[in-house]
Amino acid sequence: MASIQSLRPLSRAIRAVSTIPVATRSLSTLNPGKVEKTGPRHFLSIKDLTPTEFKTLIDNATTHKKALQSQSSPSAHPAWGLSTSLAGRTIPLLFSKRSTRTRISTEGAVVAMGGHSMFLGKEDIQLGVNESLFDTSVVLSSMTAGIVARVGPHKEIADLAEHSSVPVINGLCDTFHPMQIIADFACLSQSLGCGADGLRGLKVAWVGDANNVLYDMCIGAGKLGMDMAVATPKDYAIPSHIKDMIREAGQGNFSETNTPEEAVKDADVIVTDTWISMGQEEERQNRLRAFEGYQVTEKMAERGGANKDWKFMHCLPRHQEEVSDEVFYGSRSLVFPEAQNRLWSAIAALEGFVVNKGDIKKTDA
Amino acid sequence: MASIQSLRPLSRAIRAVSTIPVATRSLSTLNPGKVEKTGPRHFLSIKDLTPTEFKTLIDNATTHKKALQSQSSPSAHPAWGLSTSLAGRTIPLLFSKRSTRTRISTEGAVVAMGGHSMFLGKEDIQLGVNESLFDTSVVLSSMTAGIVARVGPHKEIADLAEHSSVPVINGLCDTFHPMQIIADFACLSQSLGCGADGLRGLKVAWVGDANNVLYDMCIGAGKLGMDMAVATPKDYAIPSHIKDMIREAGQGNFSETNTPEEAVKDADVIVTDTWISMGQEEERQNRLRAFEGYQVTEKMAERGGANKDWKFMHCLPRHQEEVSDEVFYGSRSLVFPEAQNRLWSAIAALEGFVVNKGDIKKTDA
Amino acid sequence: MASIQSLRPLSRAIRAVSTIPVATRSLSTLNPGKVEKTGPRHFLSIKDLTPTEFKTLIDNATTHKKALQSQSSPSAHPAWGLSTSLAGRTIPLLFSKRSTRTRISTEGAVVAMGGHSMFLGKEDIQLGVNESLFDTSVVLSSMTAGIVARVGPHKEIADLAEHSSVPVINGLCDTFHPMQIIADFACLSQSLGCGADGLRGLKVAWVGDANNVLYDMCIGAGKLGMDMAVATPKDYAIPSHIKDMIREAGQGNFSETNTPEEAVKDADVIVTDTWISMGQEEERQNRLRAFEGYQVTEKMAERGGANKDWKFMHCLPRHQEEVSDEVFYGSRSLVFPEAQNRLWSAIAALEGFVVNKGDIKKTDA
Repeated sequence: MASIQSLRPLSRAIRAVSTIPVATRSLSTLNPGKVEKTGPRHFLSIKDLTPTEFKTLIDNATTHKKALQSQSSPSAHPAWGLSTSLAGRTIPLLFSKRSTRTRISTEGAVVAMGGHSMFLGKEDIQLGVNESLFDTSVVLSSMTAGIVARVGPHKEIADLAEHSSVPVINGLCDTFHPMQIIADFACLSQSLGCGADGLRGLKVAWVGDANNVLYDMCIGAGKLGMDMAVATPKDYAIPSHIKDMIREAGQGNFSETNTPEEAVKDADVIVTDTWISMGQEEERQNRLRAFEGYQVTEKMAERGGANKDWKFMHCLPRHQEEVSDEVFYGSRSLVFPEAQNRLWSAIAALEGFVVNKGDIKKTDA
Repeated sequence: MASIQSLRPLSRAIRAVSTIPVATRSLSTLNPGKVEKTGPRHFLSIKDLTPTEFKTLIDNATTHKKALQSQSSPSAHPAWGLSTSLAGRTIPLLFSKRSTRTRISTEGAVVAMGGHSMFLGKEDIQLGVNESLFDTSVVLSSMTAGIVARVGPHKEIADLAEHSSVPVINGLCDTFHPMQIIADFACLSQSLGCGADGLRGLKVAWVGDANNVLYDMCIGAGKLGMDMAVATPKDYAIPSHIKDMIREAGQGNFSETNTPEEAVKDADVIVTDTWISMGQEEERQNRLRAFEGYQVTEKMAERGGANKDWKFMHCLPRHQEEVSDEVFYGSRSLVFPEAQNRLWSAIAALEGFVVNKGDIKKTDA
Repeated sequence: MASIQSLRPLSRAIRAVSTIPVATRSLSTLNPGKVEKTGPRHFLSIKDLTPTEFKTLIDNATTHKKALQSQSSPSAHPAWGLSTSLAGRTIPLLFSKRSTRTRISTEGAVVAMGGHSMFLGKEDIQLGVNESLFDTSVVLSSMTAGIVARVGPHKEIADLAEHSSVPVINGLCDTFHPMQIIADFACLSQSLGCGADGLRGLKVAWVGDANNVLYDMCIGAGKLGMDMAVATPKDYAIPSHIKDMIREAGQGNFSETNTPEEAVKDADVIVTDTWISMGQEEERQNRLRAFEGYQVTEKMAERGGANKDWKFMHCLPRHQEEVSDEVFYGSRSLVFPEAQNRLWSAIAALEGFVVNKGDIKKTDA
C-alpha cells in the first residue's frame, strides 16, 4: 500500500500556512501558481489604485460602453475576447445587504464576459455565523474566479480579502464604494466627450451626508486632480481619519463647509445621495431637521453661483428630500446614464482584477 | 478645460423627457436607436396580439418544441441561431409573487437561448418601496435586454412597461397570464396534430373561478374563433369591464352560466383552475361552499353532455377540490404536457418580443 | 374540424400511467425516448454504485481537477467537450436546507460544463406544500436536464426521484451525502498520488457523531476495500438498519467502539464532523456532554496509536469543539483541498448521471 503523501498543490500551502500563527497568516499562498507571494490583488477602494490605474479603469469603462452599444450582441464584442473572458467561471456575489444597481450591473457584467454570477444573499451565507470567516474565504475562493462582496463594516471585506485566494472586489461597505466612483467619473468624462484626463481642474460639489460614496469620490477626485468641495451639516461631517486618507490621495483641492451655497460656488457638478441610508430609518426625523436647506435645487445652485452649465449626479436610489424633481428629472441630470455606467464600470473592474489579475491596462477598442 | 456637454445618447433623451410632465411621460425614448417613437413593444396580455400574431406564437412554440426535442442539446438548435440569440444578455425575472412553473419555464427558455436569467424576488427588489417605480424601470431596463415581471395589480406591470426602454413580458398579474395561454393552445393544437388554425370551432368550457388565466383564455379563444363557455358561481363571475375586452377580441362565441353542466355541453375541452388563489386563503371556507358542485369529474361531464373525447386542462398547481383524481391523472388529462409547453411558449414569447423586438413572425423550422 | 387526438409523446405516457394506482406508479415513462423502462438512473447514495463505478467517479474527479487546473479557462477543457456538455440546459438545485459548499460546488460544476444552475430555496418552492410532490416532480423534470436536491428525510428525495423523468442527484438528505464522499476519497487518493484502487487496505477512523456523511462513507469504504473504524458515544451510534446496509456493501473491515483511542489505532485517516447539525441546536448542552473526550487532537491520536502520518478530514463547516486548531489548521489537515474536491466531484457526478445518463465510464484525460 502506498504511504500517504501530501496533496499537491494545496497541501503544500496548507502545511506552509500552518506554521504561521492563525491570527496573522494569510492563505493567499494556497494557490501558488496563480498568486503573488502576497496573494491576489484586491479592489476595495479607489485608494488601492494609482492615478494612472484609476484613469485607465474609467476610460476602459467608456471603451466597453462604446464597443457593446455598437454591437448587436455582447457575444459580438471585439477581438480581445471579452465575451468569453469569464467562460466557465463563477463569480459569487456575497451580499449581506440588499442591492439593486450593484447586483444588476455586476451580474450583467459577468454575463457579458461569458461567466456565471452566483448571488448569495444574507440568508444563503451568513458570513462568520456558522463557521469562521477564514474558513469561508478559503473554501469560497478555492472554487470561484473572484468574489464581489457587499458587506457592513469595512473590516469584513478586508478580512475576506486577506484570506481569499482569488481577487475580492468591493461592491459597497460602510467606508467605500469604488465601483460607483468609476461609473461616476466615466459618466462625467463621457458627458465632456473627453477621457479621464480631461476631468482635471473641474470642480465637484457634494451637498449632503458624508458617506462611503463621498469618501471614495473625494479620493478619486484627488487622483484626477479635480477640486472637491463638501458641504455637510456640522454633526455629519467626514471623520478625521477619512480626511487623512483623502488628503494622502490628493492632487486637487479639497475643502469643507457647512454652507451648501459656499460649496457649489463655481461647481461644474453637484452631487448628493440619500440622507437616510439603510439602517438609519430610526434617525429619520433628526436627520430631516439637520439637513434642512441641503436639498439640491435650481435656486440653491443659483444663489451659490454654480457654473451655469452645472450637472447633477446621484448614485440612487433617490428620495424626494435631497433633490428637487426639477433638478433630478431635468436636463442637468446625469443620474440615469450614471446608473447605466455601473455596467461598463463593473466590466472594467472585473477585467482588471479578475481577468488580468490586477494588471490594470488600457483595453483595446 | 472642456465644457460639460451632453451625454450621448442617453442625456439627449433625458433632456427631452424632462420637458414632459412626470406623471405622463414615458422614458421609452431613452434608447432611440432601438425603439420606436412609442417605445419598445411589450407583451402584457393576449389582447396585445392580432389573431395572426397569436397563432404565430402558438405555432412557433410547437416549432421550438420539435426542434429542441429532436436535438441532443439546445446548443444544436438549428441554423436560425436560437441557441445564441440571447448570448451575453441578461433577462431579469422581477417576481413579487412566488412561482414554480413560470420561473422554471422562463429561466429555461432564456438559457436555451444562450442568455442569463436573473431572478429578483420580493426580497431582492421591492417595486416602488425604496424608490419610485419610474426610477427602477429606467435603470433596470438600461442594463438588461428585456424584463419578465410577475406582479400583483395590472397597473404595476403597465407602469413598469410604460417607463421601460426594453420589452416587458407579463409573467402573471391579477388580470392576465398570456404566457400560460400560448402554452395552453399550443398544447391543444399539438394534441390535434394541427396548427393553431385548426382550433377554430372547438368548444372550450371553463368550470370554476373567474381569474386572470380565464380572462386571457377567453380573449385568446375569441382570436382563434373558438367557442368559449364559462360556468362560475353567481358571485364569482367575470367583471363587466373584462367582458367588454373579451367581446372586443371576439370572433367566436362566448357564453356564461352558473350551471357547470350547461357549460360543458358539447365541450371539446374542460378547463379549471384553483378556487383559492394566493392571498385568498382566508376566504377558503366561503369559497368551498360557493363552488360546491363545480368539481370537474367524469360524471359531471357526462351529465352535461361533453364531447365523448373531451380533454382536461389545468394550469397548475392543482388542489383536490376542483378536479377529481380520476380526471386529473386520467387519459383525458393534458396537464403535464400543458405545463411542459410553458417552456416552448416562453421561448416563443422571448423570441418575438426581445429578440425580434415585437415583430412576430413565423420561426423557420 | 379535426377530432381531438392524443398528445405525443407525453399523453401516451400519461394515459398509460393513469391506469396504475396513484400511490405506486412512476412517471418515469413520461419521456420514453430518453429513459429506460424503469426511468432514469438516479444517484441518491454511494450504495447505488458498484465498486467499479464508485472508483471511476473518484478517478474522474481527479481527472477533471487536473484538466481544469492545467487550463487557463474551463472553456479550454479538453476535447471531450466537457465545457459544453450542459450547454443550453438547466439544472435546478432544489434546496430545502441552507448550504454553502454543496451549492457553490454544484453551481460551479454546472457552469464549468456550460449549463445554467437554478437555485430554488425553501422560499422558492415548498416541496409538497402547495401541490403534491408527484406533480412538482413531473413538471420540474419535464423542463430541466437533471435535479440536484438537498432535502430533509430521505423519503423526500426518494419520492422526488421516483416521479422524475430526469436524473436526481442527492445533495444531502438525512441519511446520505454521496457527493461529499466522492470528494473525500478523491482528495485522499490525490494525497497518495494513486488512483482509487490504491486506497484498498487503508484504515479510516471516524470519531464523533453518527450521521449521513458517516453512513455513505462507511458504504464507500466497504466498496473500496478499506477498513473503517467508528467511535461514537453509546447513545449516538449508527442505527442497526444502516449497519445492515453498510455490511452489505462491505469488502473491507468495519468495526464500532465507544472509545476514540481504540478507533484511531493504526488509522491512516481520522475524520470527524460537527456534533451539532442543523436543527439540533437545542440539544447542544446534552451533546457537548455526551461527546466529551471525542475532540480530535494530536494527543488523542498519539494515545490511541494512529499511524504517525495520519491525515485529518472534515466536511465542514467546522466548529471548535470537535477538532483542535492544531489539527484542523495543521499539516495533517486535508480539509481545504477536500472542500475544493467538491467541485471536481460534482462535475464527475453530473457527467456520469446527467450527461452520460447513468453509464459511469472513465473520462478521457
